[in-house]
Amino acid sequence: MKNKQQILAKRPIGFPERDTWELRENETGALNEGEVLIRNHFISLDPAMRGWMNNARSYIEPVEIGDVMRAGTIGEVIESKNPKFNVGDMLSGWGGVQQYTVTDGKGHYKVDTSLAPAPTYIGTLGMPGMTAYFGILEVGKIKEGEVVVVSGAAGAVGSVVGQIAKIKGCRVVGIAGGAQKCEYLKSELGFDEVIDYKAGNLRKDLKLACPEGIDVYFDNVGGEILDTVLTRIRMHARIVICGAISQYNETSIKGPANYLSLLVNRATMQGMVVFDYSKKYGEAAKEMGMWMAQGKLKAKEDVYEGIERFYDTFCRLFSGEKMGKLVLDVRDN
Amino acid sequence: MKNKQQILAKRPIGFPERDTWELRENETGALNEGEVLIRNHFISLDPAMRGWMNNARSYIEPVEIGDVMRAGTIGEVIESKNPKFNVGDMLSGWGGVQQYTVTDGKGHYKVDTSLAPAPTYIGTLGMPGMTAYFGILEVGKIKEGEVVVVSGAAGAVGSVVGQIAKIKGCRVVGIAGGAQKCEYLKSELGFDEVIDYKAGNLRKDLKLACPEGIDVYFDNVGGEILDTVLTRIRMHARIVICGAISQYNETSIKGPANYLSLLVNRATMQGMVVFDYSKKYGEAAKEMGMWMAQGKLKAKEDVYEGIERFYDTFCRLFSGEKMGKLVLDVRDN
Repeated sequence: MKNKQQILAKRPIGFPERDTWELRENETGALNEGEVLIRNHFISLDPAMRGWMNNARSYIEPVEIGDVMRAGTIGEVIESKNPKFNVGDMLSGWGGVQQYTVTDGKGHYKVDTSLAPAPTYIGTLGMPGMTAYFGILEVGKIKEGEVVVVSGAAGAVGSVVGQIAKIKGCRVVGIAGGAQKCEYLKSELGFDEVIDYKAGNLRKDLKLACPEGIDVYFDNVGGEILDTVLTRIRMHARIVICGAISQYNETSIKGPANYLSLLVNRATMQGMVVFDYSKKYGEAAKEMGMWMAQGKLKAKEDVYEGIERFYDTFCRLFSGEKMGKLVLDVRDN
Repeated sequence: MKNKQQILAKRPIGFPERDTWELRENETGALNEGEVLIRNHFISLDPAMRGWMNNARSYIEPVEIGDVMRAGTIGEVIESKNPKFNVGDMLSGWGGVQQYTVTDGKGHYKVDTSLAPAPTYIGTLGMPGMTAYFGILEVGKIKEGEVVVVSGAAGAVGSVVGQIAKIKGCRVVGIAGGAQKCEYLKSELGFDEVIDYKAGNLRKDLKLACPEGIDVYFDNVGGEILDTVLTRIRMHARIVICGAISQYNETSIKGPANYLSLLVNRATMQGMVVFDYSKKYGEAAKEMGMWMAQGKLKAKEDVYEGIERFYDTFCRLFSGEKMGKLVLDVRDN
């Protein structure tokens, strides 16, 4: 099969330019024993991709120059020499930014697209959903009645964090960019309060939204928002460091200048990586699937088309021009 | 009695100038029922004093302008109308920077100066020692065999942190300023490694001292040292935020730019305030007293004389021209 791929062509400094990736076309060869050929339908676009391009010690090896760009995928088995997978199976895995993946199946698992649409398996029932679930429950340790603030609240992770916190009986305040996202969080997802940080009154708005302070903050963004939240945390607050999208393209990171608020409030700031919870993904997916069936948890994907448009779609992660989980449909239709 | 006092005269911006305090002399009046008159012998000088002067929400009310400067003290009861205290009792408490304190005894407790010298009760057996004990054991949660790094290692808190970590079977690396302090930590207190941050090779020296990374970091200093340590923490590391002496006199705080290392390493940064452990001070003092008797824990105080020299002595906290616990003898001899 002709296989279009997005190849990492160079390591970006600051915001990646268009020529960071190169579109290449090659042919998928014959399968070896134990391999499967997957036709990828959907590619997951995640802020974490930016980190994977840096040549730095991190929670995962960097993508090498010349390699297919790493990405979570969902696709259909179209040929199999692996007894565990049949033609027609839909698999979620690390297929990369390409139209076809040849793999021995390691790290790929079957999903049932009759229960939820395929893109949901790389969103709310995939990595972002798992990040939200374990981050807010196991790291944030939310308790009923607590005040929970989440940034990047309209994103793939943040929107799930807020909904789970609502399910658990917390008062939930979302921080997002733009009136449309805020409206969506409040009217569609049932957030108690929303703050449009682009309106420019973050400090004041946060005070109004959390007059008694904040028990748990789930941080996806870092930078000024993290610093402002730190001024309003309560005693024994927990801050979950999940990401820092505002900083990923900066050549020098802005650390939280108000971190001594941790001391004053005997608070904790803890980092997390979702992979640590992989043994419990099944359990979490089951519970989240139930919440979805009950209408308590809503999944939203924003799907763009064409592997050629990977760069433009990637840019939406950082411009914020998207709603919910950002997905690229890479099928040539 | 004629009572010399150091009064907070103004709120400093940046490093306090000499006229931040004003020496005043007044007379102690007659005691009311329930009160005692204490002749203070020793005043505790602590970096935290700098924070108490700021008009900001913190773990304790700020000292008001016109009030006696807050300080921990140890002194002798010379008159008592309180049945709980007798003339001759040595009391530790919050007597303030003054020669005599009139108090109802709240927050004051008797100490036995036949067991340890009086200054030790505001050092290793006082607030700094308690901070070290609960910080490294209950927040740092050190385990045998772990690599523990402590900054401000020759200070009142840091020197006890390191010694306790040694007692618990950890490998201990101290960071201090100057060759003399480093020599003291290694030869007198038994630290495994020491780093003189003033030598200017912090990053390299830390790598050499902790080739396998750091499990627990007890931070007294913040700033560049905290940032450098963050580059070398191990998975599930714990960082105890006890203080940030490098930042207390800055008008804008430098946050830890490398805080995303918490994410990569699933690490925790937690603030602490010793007052939370007050119910267990007795227990801790007993254990530390035992270690002192066994020669496993050494106390060191650096005592200066004269309440008039409060300002110059205070400055030593930040210039580092002292060794161990900084104490001012305020008796007119």
